Amino acid sequence: MDLYGRDLLTTQEWSKAELDAVLQLAANMKRNRFSDEYTSILKHKTFLMFFYNPSVRTRQSFESAATELGGHAQFLEPKAMRLKTAKTAGETVEDAARVMSRYGAGLGIRILEDKISAYGEGDELLREYARWADIPVISMAHDKYHPCQGLADAMGWAEWFGEGPGHGVDTSLLKGKKLLVTWGHGALARSWCSVQEALLIGSRFGMDVTLAYPQGFDLDSEVISWTRQNCVENGRDFAITHDVRQGYDGAHVVYSRHWMSPQAYQNGEFLKQQEIEKGLEYPQWICDAERMKLTDNALFTHPMPVDRGHEVTDEVASGPRSCIYDVAENRLHVQKALMALTMAGN
Amino acid sequence: MDLYGRDLLTTQEWSKAELDAVLQLAANMKRNRFSDEYTSILKHKTFLMFFYNPSVRTRQSFESAATELGGHAQFLEPKAMRLKTAKTAGETVEDAARVMSRYGAGLGIRILEDKISAYGEGDELLREYARWADIPVISMAHDKYHPCQGLADAMGWAEWFGEGPGHGVDTSLLKGKKLLVTWGHGALARSWCSVQEALLIGSRFGMDVTLAYPQGFDLDSEVISWTRQNCVENGRDFAITHDVRQGYDGAHVVYSRHWMSPQAYQNGEFLKQQEIEKGLEYPQWICDAERMKLTDNALFTHPMPVDRGHEVTDEVASGPRSCIYDVAENRLHVQKALMALTMAGN
Amino acid sequence: MDLYGRDLLTTQEWSKAELDAVLQLAANMKRNRFSDEYTSILKHKTFLMFFYNPSVRTRQSFESAATELGGHAQFLEPKAMRLKTAKTAGETVEDAARVMSRYGAGLGIRILEDKISAYGEGDELLREYARWADIPVISMAHDKYHPCQGLADAMGWAEWFGEGPGHGVDTSLLKGKKLLVTWGHGALARSWCSVQEALLIGSRFGMDVTLAYPQGFDLDSEVISWTRQNCVENGRDFAITHDVRQGYDGAHVVYSRHWMSPQAYQNGEFLKQQEIEKGLEYPQWICDAERMKLTDNALFTHPMPVDRGHEVTDEVASGPRSCIYDVAENRLHVQKALMALTMAGN
Repeated sequence: MDLYGRDLLTTQEWSKAELDAVLQLAANMKRNRFSDEYTSILKHKTFLMFFYNPSVRTRQSFESAATELGGHAQFLEPKAMRLKTAKTAGETVEDAARVMSRYGAGLGIRILEDKISAYGEGDELLREYARWADIPVISMAHDKYHPCQGLADAMGWAEWFGEGPGHGVDTSLLKGKKLLVTWGHGALARSWCSVQEALLIGSRFGMDVTLAYPQGFDLDSEVISWTRQNCVENGRDFAITHDVRQGYDGAHVVYSRHWMSPQAYQNGEFLKQQEIEKGLEYPQWICDAERMKLTDNALFTHPMPVDRGHEVTDEVASGPRSCIYDVAENRLHVQKALMALTMAGN
Repeated sequence: MDLYGRDLLTTQEWSKAELDAVLQLAANMKRNRFSDEYTSILKHKTFLMFFYNPSVRTRQSFESAATELGGHAQFLEPKAMRLKTAKTAGETVEDAARVMSRYGAGLGIRILEDKISAYGEGDELLREYARWADIPVISMAHDKYHPCQGLADAMGWAEWFGEGPGHGVDTSLLKGKKLLVTWGHGALARSWCSVQEALLIGSRFGMDVTLAYPQGFDLDSEVISWTRQNCVENGRDFAITHDVRQGYDGAHVVYSRHWMSPQAYQNGEFLKQQEIEKGLEYPQWICDAERMKLTDNALFTHPMPVDRGHEVTDEVASGPRSCIYDVAENRLHVQKALMALTMAGN
Repeated sequence: MDLYGRDLLTTQEWSKAELDAVLQLAANMKRNRFSDEYTSILKHKTFLMFFYNPSVRTRQSFESAATELGGHAQFLEPKAMRLKTAKTAGETVEDAARVMSRYGAGLGIRILEDKISAYGEGDELLREYARWADIPVISMAHDKYHPCQGLADAMGWAEWFGEGPGHGVDTSLLKGKKLLVTWGHGALARSWCSVQEALLIGSRFGMDVTLAYPQGFDLDSEVISWTRQNCVENGRDFAITHDVRQGYDGAHVVYSRHWMSPQAYQNGEFLKQQEIEKGLEYPQWICDAERMKLTDNALFTHPMPVDRGHEVTDEVASGPRSCIYDVAENRLHVQKALMALTMAGN
């Protein structure tokens, strides 16, 4: 299997075998974090990180990943770039991407929330970069997808269903487990990328999937179709409910997270304030210990930062079945594996 | 002595033997700066730097320190972090610190001036991070203390009292020397951390200490108590004067530096403009050649940046007894030693 | 030839032999990019980068250069520095430069456009840093010059006149070739540094030089004098024309680029809006395929970012004789060579 040069915009576009290859390498890298086997993989090479939106965790994990592979990640804020738009003079993505391909071994891009004016625009920009760049383009979270989070999620859940964090990843353990992805209330008007990626990767690896949210918080219909299709292919169930409790029944993994409504972008504007108000209207949508009792001793999972008191209670988030720190740690390992496989050459 | 995993918020909380261990290693590192002995100590490891407030010198010295130890320092501006406060949704320090502990080998934090709303708030934040982080938390200057500056000061003074910069550090040479810490006028409304740390470390190492400032510029009473107690334990003198000349008599080290008044923070606001006006009301408070003549051929020391013409005249700051560049250089060496001892493991 | 410790503010201040030494090493580094011969040259050393103005390409190429030499480039935005000015308290350049010399192996500075209040101010600041720093000061583009761009230009042109990019650099191939540097219209109010450096280095290496621009867009008269003198010394022609087509006749290299007028700075202000309007008044000033037919199969060159549709048509910029990506790539290689020669010691 040769992943050298491959872009990663969503796990849905990679085969299950390819995703498993990343997870197996990540598991080995986690077991032997600073082994000589890994610390020269990107020696003297540069990973370019474009943060249209800031992010502490994504920055830390990607930059540490490059350092641990012997390379260096450059933290770039493209506000400094004068890109051509319909209205303003500036550089084309073609020119920018072609030059970067001469300097770097890979390019990560994060763009979502207020840095886009309509859902899908971030995804288009990443695809335009991927079209012109000769080096791999990796999503560091964009409006549609968050593949590195999805990989870290699957890795964390499989670890917990197996011998525990750091003791290897067997994704077949996810088969037949029930994943509940449920909306949580909150004031953060969050993007769809993390939850959508969770739906996709959970269903790819053979989980039963239930998606729960109040009326008016539909996600991307294409992602829903893919999730359904993944479930069909694996002979598993996919269900959508607007009942706040129902999805918990028998769940093995509960993923409670706020997200914005499909009305968040209107006429090129991100209506954050309106979304914040809307997001606070459903205080009953919170993951708490009582609901967790309905599950099959489910893990609590979240891509962090957790909005405690809104998306989940402290009791659950800090409870014995919370895998949030392990999943967060896995961001580092899956990203190291991904960089090694796509950017390192022979 | 095992310093692995230790936090450093002020030198006052470390034993004299521990401080000496840092200084001895720093002296060796200064003599053999790029020796193989040191350049793999943090190999492939990450030091996370949180700059709530910007700083060129602190940034440069910490980032160079990590590079020279074979590791990498990440420059992070936490304005990008959505931390939970009483008023806003966001991430808890617990969650942030626990995840960072999975990525990094150590965490440095700088917070003071306009980034706090009351004196002591920065210190509380560092202690909250230290509480939850599994990795060492190092102050890169906060409202109360600046331990790395204190270590660099003591190292520089001892070098000058010994065989000169780069020829080793014998802190016993500080015993019985007289340190004058004096307020200087100026428009910079500076924090208390550097001068307070100088009082603490000077008195720890057996110096006589005189603190001089115009009425109305009291420092933290707890720091004053500790300084007095350190002097008592060492059988040395501690004095406070509001006379602009008196403290110079027989001094061996003169530390002239502006600082804000205890009224700088009011009702959660940093009254910078008011402090600037107040700071310019006492133009006679400046270290000049005439006053230096009263000393016992004293060193002029300053943590930089120097506000020439306010805190000190050019003649003194650039004179033959100014140790400012050597002290500044020592920031690099003490920080390398500190990172090596607290973050490197075996 | 010993270039250790040398500053580079413009190629005009280095001998032709010295410039050739940089280009030969750059060519070797391009052929064997990650060879062990080069990857330890700046091992554990720090290159300090001061970006008064942002720049993606310059940042990427310098930071990658340091990484590929085994060192690390610190990205610093001096807005955080409190430098002393006539009006405000702060640190002197002397103090800043002397301390940085203790931490770093070299210092790069970028300052132009809105970060200066009069043409020449950036150059003065770099010379002030160079005066006090014990380490080499390298221009990363300032109001007057852009030596690294000039070196990358000459390298790219010589490669294309020889056996092609990556196959060595013979600067004697530039002798007798005709370089057209022509103004292009546009809304970007660009600085003079890149075009001025092209005039200087082209004329140094024995090219015939024609400079074309509409009335009112004169460049620095000192640079024009030097260019003329370089041409005289090499027995070549130097001409200035205000005709939009004339300069293309028989040209071997066409450099079409917008620049601001000499009226851009007035009373300490950068009149950007006025310059944008002025820059759009001459739409006939664009490099297109029809004009390129007048040349001797000329290369199209540009320091990027290209303002397509203003400075040049897409057809030319993306055509078979466009060397823009190769020149951009060369920024990396010449900067690596430059850092190796000036900062590495033995």
